[in-house]
Amino acid sequence: MVQDPVLDELRQFVRERDWGKFHTPGNLAKSISIEAGELLECFQWDGAELESAKEELADVLTYCLLLADKLGVDPAEIVTAKLEKSRDKYPVEKSYGRSAKYDRL
Amino acid sequence: MVQDPVLDELRQFVRERDWGKFHTPGNLAKSISIEAGELLECFQWDGAELESAKEELADVLTYCLLLADKLGVDPAEIVTAKLEKSRDKYPVEKSYGRSAKYDRL
Amino acid sequence: MVQDPVLDELRQFVRERDWGKFHTPGNLAKSISIEAGELLECFQWDGAELESAKEELADVLTYCLLLADKLGVDPAEIVTAKLEKSRDKYPVEKSYGRSAKYDRL
Amino acid sequence: MVQDPVLDELRQFVRERDWGKFHTPGNLAKSISIEAGELLECFQWDGAELESAKEELADVLTYCLLLADKLGVDPAEIVTAKLEKSRDKYPVEKSYGRSAKYDRL
Repeated sequence: MVQDPVLDELRQFVRERDWGKFHTPGNLAKSISIEAGELLECFQWDGAELESAKEELADVLTYCLLLADKLGVDPAEIVTAKLEKSRDKYPVEKSYGRSAKYDRL
Repeated sequence: MVQDPVLDELRQFVRERDWGKFHTPGNLAKSISIEAGELLECFQWDGAELESAKEELADVLTYCLLLADKLGVDPAEIVTAKLEKSRDKYPVEKSYGRSAKYDRL
Repeated sequence: MVQDPVLDELRQFVRERDWGKFHTPGNLAKSISIEAGELLECFQWDGAELESAKEELADVLTYCLLLADKLGVDPAEIVTAKLEKSRDKYPVEKSYGRSAKYDRL
Repeated sequence: MVQDPVLDELRQFVRERDWGKFHTPGNLAKSISIEAGELLECFQWDGAELESAKEELADVLTYCLLLADKLGVDPAEIVTAKLEKSRDKYPVEKSYGRSAKYDRL
C-alpha cells in the first residue's frame, strides 16, 4: 500500500464520512471527468481564471489520487512508467518542436 | 519551484522535445479533459478495463503535474488546501454515508 | 414519442444489435463525455483537425439523441426551452459582447 | 446553409449578444466538453438527477448545433453518415449483444 501523507489525509476524510462505498473505480473515473470539465471552464472563452483553475486542478488531482489508491498503484510510479513509453513513442529527433501524434510523426 | 523527481523527469521530457510552447495552461486543461475521457472509456459499458485505466490515469496525472508546474503550485499543497475546505463544506455529522452535495445537506 | 427519421435509424441500429441493455441514461451520459473528449482532441494543440471534428461531433450528437430518447424528451424542445431560460439569464443589454457568466454580469 | 427553426433561434440569440466572436470551433468544442461534464454530474454517484440531466443535455446539444453550424454541416446528415460507418464497423452478427469495440469483435 502506498505511503503518502496527502493520501493518508484523503483516506481519513473519506473514511470519516463513510464515503468509500461511493468510490468505485468507475465512479471515481466519472468524477475525474466532471472535475476536468470544471477546470476547463476556467479557460472556456477569452481570458483564464487562474485562481479558480488551481482549485479545480486540486479536485481533479484528489480524485486521481483516490482512484490510484483504489487501483492499488502509486501515482509517481505510473507516471514514470508512462513517461518511459512516451520516450519510445516520441523520439526527440522526430518529435522536436512538433505537436503531431506519434502515429503521424 | 516545486522539487520533485517525477516533475524533473517530466520537465526534461518536455524540454528535450521543445514542447513547452504548446503547454499553455489552457492547452494543458484541454489535455486533462481529453485524457479524462479516455480514462472514462475504460468504464463505458459493463465491466471495466483496469489495466488500461492505470495507463490513462497516468496520462491525466501527467498533465495535472505539468499544469500545476505551469501555475506555480505544488500538487500536494493544493490538494491539502482543498481538503481543508471540503472538511468545512462536508461536516462529518451531516454528510456521513451520504453522497449529497454540500448545498443539499 | 419523438418522431424523427434519424432517431428511427438510430433506434433500429441499436435494436438490431441488442445494445439497448447497455444504454442506461448514466452510460449514455458517460458516452457523451467520452466522445466530447475525442472531439476536443481535434483542437488540443495548435491547429484544428476539422474533418475529424465533424465525425467526432456526429458521435457526440448520436449519444445525445439516444439519451434524449431514453429520457423521453424531444431534442428541439429542450434546446428551445433552455434558450428561453438563457434569454432571461443573459439580457442583451447586460451581456452584449461579453463572455462573463450570468452571475457576474 | 442549414435551414432549421431551432438553429435560427440560436443564431439570433448569439447575434443579438455579439457572442459570435467567442464561438471559434475550438471554444465550442471546449464548451461541449464542459457541458458534458455537467451532464455527467447528474449521474456521479448513486441515483440520477433526471430533471437536471434534461437541462444539461440541452446545453450539450446547443453547443453541438452551434459547432455544426460553424463547421457548415447539417447535424442530421453527419449523424446519418456516421451511422453508415458504424454499420460497417459493427456487423450485426459479430456485435449482437456485445459491448466490445469494433477492433475486438
